[in-house]
Amino acid sequence: MKKQKVHREMNFSRRGRALVGQEMFHLLDRAQIIEREGRHVYHLELGEPKPYPPGRVINRTIISLLNSEVGYSPSRGVSSLREKLAAYCAKTAGREILMDHIVISPANMLIYQILDLLCEGTDTVSVFTPGFPTYIAATKYIGAKLHHVPLVMGSGFNLTRNSIDRALSVNPKLLIVNSGNNPTGAVYDESVLRYLLDQAIKKDCWVLSDETYSKLSFQKPYFSLLGSQYERCIVLSSFSKIFCVPGYRIGYAVADSRVVEKIGLSSSTLYSCLPVFVQEGIAEGIPIIDEFTDNRKRYYRKLRDECMKILSRSSNLVCVKPESGFYLLIDIRKLKIDDRDFSTTLLNKYSTAVTPGTSFGCKGFIRASICGDTVDVKQGLRQLVLFANSFHKNTRKGIRKI
Amino acid sequence: MKKQKVHREMNFSRRGRALVGQEMFHLLDRAQIIEREGRHVYHLELGEPKPYPPGRVINRTIISLLNSEVGYSPSRGVSSLREKLAAYCAKTAGREILMDHIVISPANMLIYQILDLLCEGTDTVSVFTPGFPTYIAATKYIGAKLHHVPLVMGSGFNLTRNSIDRALSVNPKLLIVNSGNNPTGAVYDESVLRYLLDQAIKKDCWVLSDETYSKLSFQKPYFSLLGSQYERCIVLSSFSKIFCVPGYRIGYAVADSRVVEKIGLSSSTLYSCLPVFVQEGIAEGIPIIDEFTDNRKRYYRKLRDECMKILSRSSNLVCVKPESGFYLLIDIRKLKIDDRDFSTTLLNKYSTAVTPGTSFGCKGFIRASICGDTVDVKQGLRQLVLFANSFHKNTRKGIRKI
Repeated sequence: MKKQKVHREMNFSRRGRALVGQEMFHLLDRAQIIEREGRHVYHLELGEPKPYPPGRVINRTIISLLNSEVGYSPSRGVSSLREKLAAYCAKTAGREILMDHIVISPANMLIYQILDLLCEGTDTVSVFTPGFPTYIAATKYIGAKLHHVPLVMGSGFNLTRNSIDRALSVNPKLLIVNSGNNPTGAVYDESVLRYLLDQAIKKDCWVLSDETYSKLSFQKPYFSLLGSQYERCIVLSSFSKIFCVPGYRIGYAVADSRVVEKIGLSSSTLYSCLPVFVQEGIAEGIPIIDEFTDNRKRYYRKLRDECMKILSRSSNLVCVKPESGFYLLIDIRKLKIDDRDFSTTLLNKYSTAVTPGTSFGCKGFIRASICGDTVDVKQGLRQLVLFANSFHKNTRKGIRKI
Repeated sequence: MKKQKVHREMNFSRRGRALVGQEMFHLLDRAQIIEREGRHVYHLELGEPKPYPPGRVINRTIISLLNSEVGYSPSRGVSSLREKLAAYCAKTAGREILMDHIVISPANMLIYQILDLLCEGTDTVSVFTPGFPTYIAATKYIGAKLHHVPLVMGSGFNLTRNSIDRALSVNPKLLIVNSGNNPTGAVYDESVLRYLLDQAIKKDCWVLSDETYSKLSFQKPYFSLLGSQYERCIVLSSFSKIFCVPGYRIGYAVADSRVVEKIGLSSSTLYSCLPVFVQEGIAEGIPIIDEFTDNRKRYYRKLRDECMKILSRSSNLVCVKPESGFYLLIDIRKLKIDDRDFSTTLLNKYSTAVTPGTSFGCKGFIRASICGDTVDVKQGLRQLVLFANSFHKNTRKGIRKI
């Protein structure tokens, strides 16, 4: 069959044209090109924990494969996982949570599925920034209106009653909150989260509480919205960070059974179901979640302190100490350079990949993920300091050309 | 936190309300409830091949897990798989196909992603019926207009020039064609498919060629649209059926690099990426695709003949002999009963799960999948015959009440 000698435009749909993907993955692609050229790259772009997953998760996955459990599974997830998870969540929540309230799907997918299930073009979604890029990308992709409520660096990017009022003032259909924040690391106070819930209930507004990093709060007691029985509150989490298995692509939502049913239908329509063997592997890990994450938490806390020390070697970099997780959100505004240009040059000239703050709705910042190989992470941060300090002489003369 | 004593409606979005999922999965759910009650169910509802996957696929997956390959992967798929697949497809196509033309994603997801990338509310999608339910469900979900072009049972549900003309007469944005058809088993002639492509090119219409069952054509030489270099032609396939690993959730599309890039962005936005270990497992299997599927083909062909013999025991059932795959589309119109009611009663009273034809856009038919456990499949078909023959006495008196 011969090619017709016409150059055809790709007449994509509006949603097709609006697709931007996740900046972290663009950076990963670029980093991998550099690596294929034979250069070492320090990876601080993805929240990809160094792979020390619990043996029992991996082993159970393998057993499942050896048993040829390679068929379809129920769209809402395998029962063994949903049951164990319901019991585990009920303990955290201090209330009855049943299998019918649990749905399994990749956490990133769940953000999209929930947005799609609830919102359309005429609806508004309120997000606090800095915020996880998928909230922004998925809202844009769906075509709903996005209402950014910036949190203030001076107060450690903490959630305040005032910011909640502003978020709800536009009568959003959905309010997204992310305590154990990515990228700031802030863990929100119980009183403020209770206020958020009360106000949302008053307005009949849906709440999506992304609690992916709830197990990694270093010191502050973590307040989960799992305890709420508000029908329009959905709690989301991911096993990627809990068990250091981002490649398993398994997360879950806890919600009203009517929401769970709809998400199951969405999964069935979109991708049918998830592999049985990865779900069985994760199910095997449920009893050790607390022990395993306590361990990781101590490790990340120590690492955070070491990393902050490295960053302090450049007065051009400012970083609020994170209270959870494994990200450092670094203020580079003193350098008077676009954060995307900064990230590109840092990768090209200093072989270090970070994510520009613009992806998180905060220009003038970059996010460094410190959960990868520790030696690499520290060296990457040293490279970052080197680059930031190279601006020193020039910054007084205005914006530096690179 | 106390529950507010208000019963809240779930005010879902239009797309949320329109979600229906896949009928096969509803049936699977119902069948599993019956099984939990202790009754044996004959599973003829899902195209889930009996799990005899190639050892090298499973073993390589396990090795990948043992090597802790549990991190993120590129959104378009891992390079090793894309490269091997490009070389394999190039051989089939007789033209250059590069890694940039290959994108990895679950095949069901790809149908949704492609539809979403190309179509919106004002666009029309033409599909031939009987057709795979996801074409219909995903088009409805996206909100595009659906143009059904029924194929005729008398000619073995074959594609004709006339049906192609009718499909294109409404100026669709996208035309979906599925040779090695699910559910009819029809394999379309080269000349007709060339005509389809020529006419689509004349109209600048996008073509999605679902070639999931291309390796399972029993006798007829399979004509693939992979050879075409029409920029708006996308070829789709799945490893679920090739390697009997539906639970791996891995498929692929071959398309213009601009489409591949967009699908990668869509995957990145929706679910980030797929597990590395399942992709590495599949990559290991590429060299044995032909040998493995030749074997399966012989097996299914023999099984088809045996199954047709069982069905012939009821004059109430009519079935066109499939030329490929592992489905039997059975005409139950003589029974004058709704195919969904028939399927429900067959499951409840005869412990046999099949899929109603309504899901495939053909009322009055049912689809029996014969790729599961052979003993079960045959017993399930015997149950079906039993049920169909129970109508015998009553059919003359008109519609039977059950």
